[in-house]
Amino acid sequence: MAIQAYAATAPGGQLERFEYDPGPLAPDEVEIDVEYCGVCHSDLSMLDNDWELTTYPFVPGHEVIGRVAQAGPTVGHLQVGQRVGLGWSSRSCLVCDECLGGHQHRCGQIETGGATIVGRHGGFANKVRCQAVWAIALPETVDALSAGPLFCGGITVFNPFIRNAIRPTQHVAVVGIGGLGHMALAFANKWGCEVTAFSTNPSKEAETREMGAHHFLNSKDPAALTDAANRFDMVLVTVNVPLDWDAYIATLRPGGKLHVVGAIPSLQATWFPVILGDKSIGGSPTGSPATIREMLTFCGRHRIAPTVEEYPLSQVNEAMEKIRNGSPRYRLVLKNDLGG
Amino acid sequence: MAIQAYAATAPGGQLERFEYDPGPLAPDEVEIDVEYCGVCHSDLSMLDNDWELTTYPFVPGHEVIGRVAQAGPTVGHLQVGQRVGLGWSSRSCLVCDECLGGHQHRCGQIETGGATIVGRHGGFANKVRCQAVWAIALPETVDALSAGPLFCGGITVFNPFIRNAIRPTQHVAVVGIGGLGHMALAFANKWGCEVTAFSTNPSKEAETREMGAHHFLNSKDPAALTDAANRFDMVLVTVNVPLDWDAYIATLRPGGKLHVVGAIPSLQATWFPVILGDKSIGGSPTGSPATIREMLTFCGRHRIAPTVEEYPLSQVNEAMEKIRNGSPRYRLVLKNDLGG
Repeated sequence: MAIQAYAATAPGGQLERFEYDPGPLAPDEVEIDVEYCGVCHSDLSMLDNDWELTTYPFVPGHEVIGRVAQAGPTVGHLQVGQRVGLGWSSRSCLVCDECLGGHQHRCGQIETGGATIVGRHGGFANKVRCQAVWAIALPETVDALSAGPLFCGGITVFNPFIRNAIRPTQHVAVVGIGGLGHMALAFANKWGCEVTAFSTNPSKEAETREMGAHHFLNSKDPAALTDAANRFDMVLVTVNVPLDWDAYIATLRPGGKLHVVGAIPSLQATWFPVILGDKSIGGSPTGSPATIREMLTFCGRHRIAPTVEEYPLSQVNEAMEKIRNGSPRYRLVLKNDLGG
Repeated sequence: MAIQAYAATAPGGQLERFEYDPGPLAPDEVEIDVEYCGVCHSDLSMLDNDWELTTYPFVPGHEVIGRVAQAGPTVGHLQVGQRVGLGWSSRSCLVCDECLGGHQHRCGQIETGGATIVGRHGGFANKVRCQAVWAIALPETVDALSAGPLFCGGITVFNPFIRNAIRPTQHVAVVGIGGLGHMALAFANKWGCEVTAFSTNPSKEAETREMGAHHFLNSKDPAALTDAANRFDMVLVTVNVPLDWDAYIATLRPGGKLHVVGAIPSLQATWFPVILGDKSIGGSPTGSPATIREMLTFCGRHRIAPTVEEYPLSQVNEAMEKIRNGSPRYRLVLKNDLGG
């Protein structure tokens, strides 16, 4: 049966009603009846073909929440009707060293046809398909309406806590309190850490404290950075603009980690302080299915949920415009009003 | 009793006979009768005041092997006559979080008076002093003449294996086969890893294979780098010149680590590949007393020793000249001929 979606036919174009035939369901796939789909900044980057990866007609959407509509014959762990989520990755080979090692999100296949909106049609639609391992069951403890953004933005800032083996006794700073950063504050707080929010917008201070920050620093104030020297075990950067990297590296304690998930073009650092301080600078993509499950269970236990604004899917262009020019506080979620 | 040494009185100057009174021995110190002292490139950097840390008269030398001549009253774990080594660090506070956490080499005090040749007189002398925890007992299994370089250059390239939790099943590349790199090849080989040497000098190939490399790549050949894409778990950079960092990052497997211990001025990296590949870039200084012990035991068990050329201490200026203009293969060691 044809899938109803919203697609753009050219870079930067409006999203218009679009229908496509997905063909037969692969044996290892599920088809999801979309209930909600988050809007991520990378949907906009892909719409505009910023990364030269986009094929048109282009259907965005990779923060999907919905129910399993049908499952291929080799899918044994999901039932029709079960609520699941789908993020950036929708297929990996499952047999390479990365996949078998539990790092399915690092599988080479994701870059060559396994990303939900690269060479495939995404979740701004009434249905979307994926390899069943990438449809992660949503625990009853997690609110469905707001859960979509956990599957891309959320896992992107959750995974660094795992990767860097952050302990609850440590001190974590989050740079940039937006779609990713506001989730990072909640994770860091419930992780047990002492949490500092860096923002260029002092009007956000009270709000960041409600989100989990114990301290607020104005990142436009050079003295605030200087005063924070030698303080953090991890500085998690969610912005995609160049920063004074040396100044942020100086805020790390010995052995500390600067972890940059924002899509900055490049990073330059004076090296002597890195050597003397036993420091490192890293980045990471989303996370594996097991880590997504771990995050969802953690969110359920601690009532962590993204702060979202809801739009009907039929107003998808208004939502994209808000991502392009506005300041969503903090993530947008589209509710499917296309019908089943 | 006065200590006999060689000192320079101005930046870049010749080293001349120099005598100084060390004053009373501190209760937690030992005095070492110097037998051998390695010559490290940082002795030259300090001689030239490259880092603006040098005070004159300046006595270089921080790769000391010798015997305990006297020990302060609070020193219980070393006996007079016992053979020990001393490296870059000679005093740390022992009570800060870094010291108590086992990272004494990251103690803030090392930068403010606890380095063997910063604000203190080093091992180009008949005697040198240090806090007793930094005089590390030399196992009988380790050759004394060649052991000095392990205490600075050696620990600098050994510690990255510990810091990055390298497994024997992994693939390690060493960039730059000189004073540090030749020891790194031996460590990587005995660690059990598959080992690749990167050098700009193809005439070193046979020698690097004897040192432990399984593969040799000419780092001046861009195709060699391209062919090595997605191959290494750690690339350990020992050179202090700028490289094509993006090309080396591309040689890392997913999750791989670029670890730069060479004193490069700065490092710049295109960030998208770091994020997609879950990679990180780090640096580190020497190592803790416990890690130095771990290294020495490992060296003894596997017969790992730096390749050294021996000079009498009285020819210290010739040795320094060779470091400045020559290509020592691979470390220089001065033998004390000043007498006791």
